[in-house]
Amino acid sequence: MELIYPEFYDRFAAFLRSLEGRRVVVISHARPDGDCIGSQVALTRVLRALNIDVICANPDPVPRRIQFAVGDTPLVNFDGLPEGDLTAIYVDCADQGRAGEKLKARFPAPFANIDHHLSNIGFAQHNFIDVGSAATAEILAGLFLDHHLPIDAQAAQSLYAGIATDTGQFRFNSTSRRTFLIVAELMARGAQPAAAAAELYERETAGKLDLLQRFLASLSYECAGRVCIGTLPNGIYAATGTSPEDVEGLVDYARSIEGVEIGVLIEEQGTAIKASLRSKDPVYRVDRIAAAFNGGGHACAAGLNLRDVTMADFRSRLVAAIDTQISAVDTLKKSTL
Amino acid sequence: MELIYPEFYDRFAAFLRSLEGRRVVVISHARPDGDCIGSQVALTRVLRALNIDVICANPDPVPRRIQFAVGDTPLVNFDGLPEGDLTAIYVDCADQGRAGEKLKARFPAPFANIDHHLSNIGFAQHNFIDVGSAATAEILAGLFLDHHLPIDAQAAQSLYAGIATDTGQFRFNSTSRRTFLIVAELMARGAQPAAAAAELYERETAGKLDLLQRFLASLSYECAGRVCIGTLPNGIYAATGTSPEDVEGLVDYARSIEGVEIGVLIEEQGTAIKASLRSKDPVYRVDRIAAAFNGGGHACAAGLNLRDVTMADFRSRLVAAIDTQISAVDTLKKSTL
Ligand SMILES: [Mn+2]
Ligand SMILES: [Mn+2]
Repeated sequence: MELIYPEFYDRFAAFLRSLEGRRVVVISHARPDGDCIGSQVALTRVLRALNIDVICANPDPVPRRIQFAVGDTPLVNFDGLPEGDLTAIYVDCADQGRAGEKLKARFPAPFANIDHHLSNIGFAQHNFIDVGSAATAEILAGLFLDHHLPIDAQAAQSLYAGIATDTGQFRFNSTSRRTFLIVAELMARGAQPAAAAAELYERETAGKLDLLQRFLASLSYECAGRVCIGTLPNGIYAATGTSPEDVEGLVDYARSIEGVEIGVLIEEQGTAIKASLRSKDPVYRVDRIAAAFNGGGHACAAGLNLRDVTMADFRSRLVAAIDTQISAVDTLKKSTL
Repeated sequence: MELIYPEFYDRFAAFLRSLEGRRVVVISHARPDGDCIGSQVALTRVLRALNIDVICANPDPVPRRIQFAVGDTPLVNFDGLPEGDLTAIYVDCADQGRAGEKLKARFPAPFANIDHHLSNIGFAQHNFIDVGSAATAEILAGLFLDHHLPIDAQAAQSLYAGIATDTGQFRFNSTSRRTFLIVAELMARGAQPAAAAAELYERETAGKLDLLQRFLASLSYECAGRVCIGTLPNGIYAATGTSPEDVEGLVDYARSIEGVEIGVLIEEQGTAIKASLRSKDPVYRVDRIAAAFNGGGHACAAGLNLRDVTMADFRSRLVAAIDTQISAVDTLKKSTL
C-alpha cells in the first residue's frame, strides 16, 4: 500500500524511537470535542501497545456524547497528573494556550505537536502539522497505518469519532478521498459508524430540543432574505435547563435556508452580547464583519463578544455591517463579470 | 484490485452484452429520493457512454434538493416516454408497483431489476439484488468499478448522492467498509461530498424550519420518558407554507433524545390520522405496534394510516399499545438475564 503521509514517514519513525523509556502525557484543548478526545485516546492506546508509559490529560471534563471515544483509556485532568518528569505531546491544539495556562506552565517546552490547524506555528520539538487533513485523527490514523502500528477497536472507534465530528459527518470541504480511505481502514480494525452516530446524535437532552425550538421561533430575515438571524435572550438557559455548550450547531439552522448567505446567532449574556456568523460562501468574509466588532475567525465562520450593549442596538449595527459587506461583494461580482 | 461484487460479475457482463442494440429506459420509484435519482442518472450516463440508447423515467418530479444529481441527464415522466419498443430496467424498486401503475402497465415484464431492498423478490429477467448494500447506488458503483466502465463526474456525484442519502450521511447500520471504499473511488472520479451536502442540507425553506419549530414545540413524553410524541395538526401545512414532503426527518428529532426508545410523529389529515414510529433498538419491533393499527414497516421504522379517528383518541390508543410492547420487552429482557 502507498504511504498516506510520505512527508512525515522518516520523522515520525525517529519520533517514535525517541519516546522509548520516556513517561508521556498526551494533551489536548479545553472544552474538548470529538477530534480532541479521539486523537488523545487513540495516540495513548497505540503508544501503550508499544510499551510506552503514557496517559492523556485534558483540562475539562469529556462531554457526555463523546465519552464513548474514551473507553477504558486513562484520562486525567490537571490535578490527576503524576509528579515528576513527563514528556508532553499536544494534539489538535493550534497553540499551547488551547489546553489552558496550567498545562502550559507545567510543560513550557512541548516535545511534540500533531495538528491540522492553519494557525499552528509548530511550537514543539517534533511537529507534524498538515492543514489539508480534515482532522488530527485523520493524521494520526494515517501515521499509524503507514507505520503498521497496532490500532485496537477502541482506538479505531476513537479516531473515527474524531474524523466524523471534525468533518460534520463528511459534509465539510475538508473531506477528501484520503478521509474515506482511512475510515475504511479504521472499520477493518473495529470502528463502527452507526454505533458512533447513536452516541453522537441520539443522546440529545429534551432541553436542547427546547432551546432549538425557541431559537427557530426567533428566526428573522434581513437583507432581502440573504441574512437569517436567531437570538437567545437572557434567561433562556435557565428556562430550558440547558447550558452554553448546548448552543453548538444552532447557528447552522439559520444558515441552512435556501437563499440565505449568512446565518447569525446572537446571544444575550447579561449586559454583554456574543454573536456567531456563518456564511455559505467564503467570499462574504464573515471574519471581517466580526473584526469590525473586535471579533474574528475564518471566512465562513466567525464570532465576537461585546460588552455593555443591548440586543436591539447590537442587532441593528450588525445588520448594517453585514449589509455593507454584501453590497461590496455584489459590486465586486458585477465588476468581474 | 479485488472485485467488489464477485457474485454478480459474470451475470452483469452478460446483461451488458444483452443490452446492445436495445432502446432502454431506466425506471425508479415515485416520490423519488437521492438513491432513486442517483441510481437512475448514473446508470443512464454509463450506458450512454457505452453507446446504448437510453433515457430515464420517473413518475414524479425531482425534488429541488436532489436536482443536482440529475445534471444534463435526459429524465422524463410517463408522458415524456418515446413510442415503440423499450427495454425497462428498474432500479431501487422493491417491486414494480413502486414506480406507479402506468409504468407497470406499459412494462409488464421488466428486463432488469437492480436493488437493495429486502422484500425484492426478483421480478425481472436479470436481477441484481444485494440487501447488504447500503444503497442501490452502492451496488451500481461497485458493478461499474468491477467492469471498468466509464463513470463521469456527474455520474460519480449522482452515485455519491444516492449513498450519502440512503446511509443518512454514513450514520445508518448499513454503512460498511465497502461503502467508504466505493466513495473514495467516486471521489477520484469527480464526486464532491461538500458540494452535495450544500445542495442536500443547505437549501431548506423557511417554512420547513417553521414546521420543525412547531413540531418541536408539540413534543411530549410518555412511558416514563421512553416515548416522545410530536404532532402536526390539521392546517399546519397552510400555516407554514409547507407540504407533506416536508415532514421527512421530523420524527428523528423525537427519537434523538437521551432515554427515548421510541419516537413518534402523528399527523392529522382531516378526519384521518397518519403516524410514523422510530425506535433506537430493533427489539421494540415498532412494525408490530403499527400492525395493530393496520400499518407496517420494519423493526426500527414503521407507519400507519387510520380513518375516522380523532387525534386525542388515537394518541391514547397508540400510547397504550406502545406501553404494552415496552413492558413485554422489559419482561423478556429480565427473563433472559
Ligand atoms: Mn480537529
Ligand atoms: Mn435505496
